[in-house]
Amino acid sequence: MTLSRLDRQLDFLRQIDRLKNVIRQSPLIDQSRRENSAEHSWHLGMYALVLAEYAEGNVDVARVMRMLLIHDIVEIDAGDTPLNLPHDAAEQAAREHCAALRIFGLLPPEQAQEFRSLWEEFEAAVSADARFAKALDRLQPLMHNVATGGGTWIPPKVTEIQVEQRYGVPIKHGAPRLWEHALEMVRQHFALRTHS
Amino acid sequence: MTLSRLDRQLDFLRQIDRLKNVIRQSPLIDQSRRENSAEHSWHLGMYALVLAEYAEGNVDVARVMRMLLIHDIVEIDAGDTPLNLPHDAAEQAAREHCAALRIFGLLPPEQAQEFRSLWEEFEAAVSADARFAKALDRLQPLMHNVATGGGTWIPPKVTEIQVEQRYGVPIKHGAPRLWEHALEMVRQHFALRTHS
Repeated sequence: MTLSRLDRQLDFLRQIDRLKNVIRQSPLIDQSRRENSAEHSWHLGMYALVLAEYAEGNVDVARVMRMLLIHDIVEIDAGDTPLNLPHDAAEQAAREHCAALRIFGLLPPEQAQEFRSLWEEFEAAVSADARFAKALDRLQPLMHNVATGGGTWIPPKVTEIQVEQRYGVPIKHGAPRLWEHALEMVRQHFALRTHS
Repeated sequence: MTLSRLDRQLDFLRQIDRLKNVIRQSPLIDQSRRENSAEHSWHLGMYALVLAEYAEGNVDVARVMRMLLIHDIVEIDAGDTPLNLPHDAAEQAAREHCAALRIFGLLPPEQAQEFRSLWEEFEAAVSADARFAKALDRLQPLMHNVATGGGTWIPPKVTEIQVEQRYGVPIKHGAPRLWEHALEMVRQHFALRTHS
């Protein structure tokens, strides 16, 4: 049986419901539980809407929002890769590539192609849109870690220098003024930690 | 102390994290738990992206996505109002209005105004953008109810006629071709229920 165009689209929308069960390392700000990738993607859409003015270069906010809504969908098959835990980057990239083919491939061909391209652009982090999207994808967990007294930055494993590299490089690249502000927050956080 | 523009924006982004703890009636499709309003808003953003071609009238999909990302933020103060449970609509509207003033008011004034207007436009459901957004906000729980063998449509309280009214009127208004398809799904669902 060939599914109609609309049947394929609805099937995709049903299947991506599973992103709500992909659990990230980051805590909610009230620390009641860890965040899932679907609500994280919503939060990033809001970050793009509110913080658009800080993007470096000429950015199309609507494209950035689309990119952020779809950026984690591959995790349904490939799982979340925590920034602060060791992992095989090449293997993870291969898993995510297969996931993109399968999941976006549920859609009618031209939509599948459109979504895959947008996700690949995000991953490549070269265009101004993708660099801003990546910056927000780092800024949001940084905010949660600072707001929860450390979050996933568990000492002595995660040091201030590591935070400044892992979060700072992409944030500075896509939104330098946000990094100036975030760096202050990070320094205050680690200074308090040292003195407590 | 006067907060800087960026401090206000980041404070707003921290505070709306609470939408992840507003629990709706609708189940996830795997029935492991009920959905929260933040992940629901992400899902609706994806519905807008995938189903844009079915909108009635001339719709700006990027605006619809923005509308859907913010449409439930008032629930942080006002709570979720289940469609299939009795409630005082005027009182709920007043609570949501106050919530919009407080929560969007955390932002710098012109952003606060922009978000409030967008939310009011969604609530009024008059513009083509708002009608399409409302249609998707009904279609998504309908899909979850059908996919989970009934979901929140608990018999004998919720009848086929009620479903066709509560979901059908807004969906038909914003996306008539989606309602044609959804109506088939609803009829099959209730026919199976009658015969089981």
